[in-house]
Amino acid sequence: MVSKEMYELGAKRSVIRELFEYGKQQAAIVGKENVFDFSIGNPTVPAPECVKEAMIELLETKKSDEIHGYTSAQGDIEVRKGLAEYMNSTYKSELKADNFYMTCGAAASLCITLKALTVNSEDEFIIVAPYFPEYQIFIKSAGGKVVIIPADTEDFQINMDLLEKAITPQTKGIIINSPNNPSGVVYSEKTFKNLADLLKNKSKEYEKTLYLISDEPYREIVYDDIQIPYVPSYYENTIVCYSYSKSISLPGERIGYILVPDCVENSKEIYTAVCGAGRSFGYVCAPSLFQKVVLKCLGKTSDIGLYDANRKLLYDGLSKMGYQCVRPDGAFYLFVKALEEDAVNFSENAKKFNLLIVPGDDFGCPGYVRISYCVDPEMLKRSFDAFQKLRDLYK
Amino acid sequence: MVSKEMYELGAKRSVIRELFEYGKQQAAIVGKENVFDFSIGNPTVPAPECVKEAMIELLETKKSDEIHGYTSAQGDIEVRKGLAEYMNSTYKSELKADNFYMTCGAAASLCITLKALTVNSEDEFIIVAPYFPEYQIFIKSAGGKVVIIPADTEDFQINMDLLEKAITPQTKGIIINSPNNPSGVVYSEKTFKNLADLLKNKSKEYEKTLYLISDEPYREIVYDDIQIPYVPSYYENTIVCYSYSKSISLPGERIGYILVPDCVENSKEIYTAVCGAGRSFGYVCAPSLFQKVVLKCLGKTSDIGLYDANRKLLYDGLSKMGYQCVRPDGAFYLFVKALEEDAVNFSENAKKFNLLIVPGDDFGCPGYVRISYCVDPEMLKRSFDAFQKLRDLYK
Repeated sequence: MVSKEMYELGAKRSVIRELFEYGKQQAAIVGKENVFDFSIGNPTVPAPECVKEAMIELLETKKSDEIHGYTSAQGDIEVRKGLAEYMNSTYKSELKADNFYMTCGAAASLCITLKALTVNSEDEFIIVAPYFPEYQIFIKSAGGKVVIIPADTEDFQINMDLLEKAITPQTKGIIINSPNNPSGVVYSEKTFKNLADLLKNKSKEYEKTLYLISDEPYREIVYDDIQIPYVPSYYENTIVCYSYSKSISLPGERIGYILVPDCVENSKEIYTAVCGAGRSFGYVCAPSLFQKVVLKCLGKTSDIGLYDANRKLLYDGLSKMGYQCVRPDGAFYLFVKALEEDAVNFSENAKKFNLLIVPGDDFGCPGYVRISYCVDPEMLKRSFDAFQKLRDLYK
Repeated sequence: MVSKEMYELGAKRSVIRELFEYGKQQAAIVGKENVFDFSIGNPTVPAPECVKEAMIELLETKKSDEIHGYTSAQGDIEVRKGLAEYMNSTYKSELKADNFYMTCGAAASLCITLKALTVNSEDEFIIVAPYFPEYQIFIKSAGGKVVIIPADTEDFQINMDLLEKAITPQTKGIIINSPNNPSGVVYSEKTFKNLADLLKNKSKEYEKTLYLISDEPYREIVYDDIQIPYVPSYYENTIVCYSYSKSISLPGERIGYILVPDCVENSKEIYTAVCGAGRSFGYVCAPSLFQKVVLKCLGKTSDIGLYDANRKLLYDGLSKMGYQCVRPDGAFYLFVKALEEDAVNFSENAKKFNLLIVPGDDFGCPGYVRISYCVDPEMLKRSFDAFQKLRDLYK
């Protein structure tokens, strides 16, 4: 009587959510302070002060319908103008308000973009392991086919040979995510250049546009003076999917955007199809108050230093114990080689010490685990004993 | 290169939006005070004080991640518990938190519900004219077929004979909307009883469940002590789609819910499929701050008295001029018989007097126009001269 596909999607909770729920149950048994939950990517660093200030200012100076009324489906024009100006001053781009479509966060940005681009069920979208698991769901929901490139466990950049082989005349686009969830890796300039060259060559070979979909919720969460480039400056046919969930710690508020720069082939058509796709999913408009809040917080971030301190603590601590960790230059995840081939079993063993870490299998990268370090530093410190015990189990 | 369907959906702005944009242009030419814009259903009555109070209280007493963090995909458990208690005390229902799924407003509620129910492209959903135009888009987006029952212009209730004929073995559900946009009509008890009887009989005849989808954004916007019933008490297989857009004037914030009561056949399966459908569209969770705000505003509404005053002014005023108006018992729309057969042309003529009223054609009801009276009362008073001139044009 119901859609089997939707039922299965609803019934199968993600592995991350399962671990998270397990952690809450376990906390009730052994005490919250004895559970070391590294499962979920829920920012713990507070939103910057500008968020609260912006809300109070809006509430005190604007009329109810100016704050809470419908905006246009694309988003408030002043917000999109401000966003264009901010991007232009940051990246020397030449964007206008009409290059932006405000959304309910990165998941919405991706779903809408994929729906706009997918012409028929032969259209293929390539994702690069390790990848955010929902990509598969979003591509299928848009009606396209998922093509997976295995992880390059050498350095967790993109293996260009594998990518080249994966591109076919049916390829419509490729989704990238740098800084990466779950690896914490930032793509190098070399990677962007090689990727751009490959896509340009393949576009010529197949005489069709290949779209690069750059999923950038972690754009500002980078360490050691690393800068994330403006991806369309490497490859013109880039559509950027952005979210404020992580950069200013508003994951529950669902606010982000899709950027379709003019340099994208058929940019006007794509933007129009984006509007249509948003409409077909019932999005109406992005939450109006938070559109106005992000306008007042352009360029601000949560205190990344707190994540950085956790990063160093965890990376150094685990490395010293003999864990093999992927160098994390961005986001708030540490990707660690499991101490046995079966990361699912390794993650199960970790549970014995109330250590909740996510096996890489769901990210398309078996043999690794993801440790989400957007956590309380005191909990992190307390967890080292458990990590040591887990290590000792494999000696 | 892009989805033709999505492109067309994005390119074709709704008639309502077209008129609204025309109004803004015209205001720049003839002055804002000389344009009488009755096109759009954007609430003008402010949100009740509890909205602002709730926001300030949350900002002052809760930590950032308690306000802005991810909630579970179904919605915050405390919010859903509070909602169940409120509904139970209001309607003597026996609902629990897990009957509710928080959404980004009514459009999201409908899209998700339809996607959860649609098994294949043969599934038919019946809509009753006059209907909200986006229903057609949402049904198609879910992969189903649209079946339309023409309006019963006698009293704008449901013509049960026509409905009976429209129900086939392929029928999956029927969408109703009372108080109705665009007619302003509230379905009578007799209508609900007859509808329930018909659906029960047809369910037996075809040995399948027929779902009633009750779209209720205007539930609290009713006049003269009219009460809107709890629809599942008439017909068990009812799924309620609700939004706070109109009742507490938060249309831009995108907050509402889907209610799947236990009395619905396969309620657990449907609820699970609802979770899956929300996930497949990238909804993640409903905006977290406003989930908590609506919890603190349960049972409150914007000042309906202001709409009521407009309603009386407009209904009496136009009736006196000789316009034939449908009696508006709810929502904030007056549905008026056009003074010629072609309501599109009538609406064009109205523009000559800077009077912006929406032809009923897009609502599936030609020959009528919708006048949205959620407007400034002073503007309404100033508009009478224009209405009189329009009337005189047809003398």
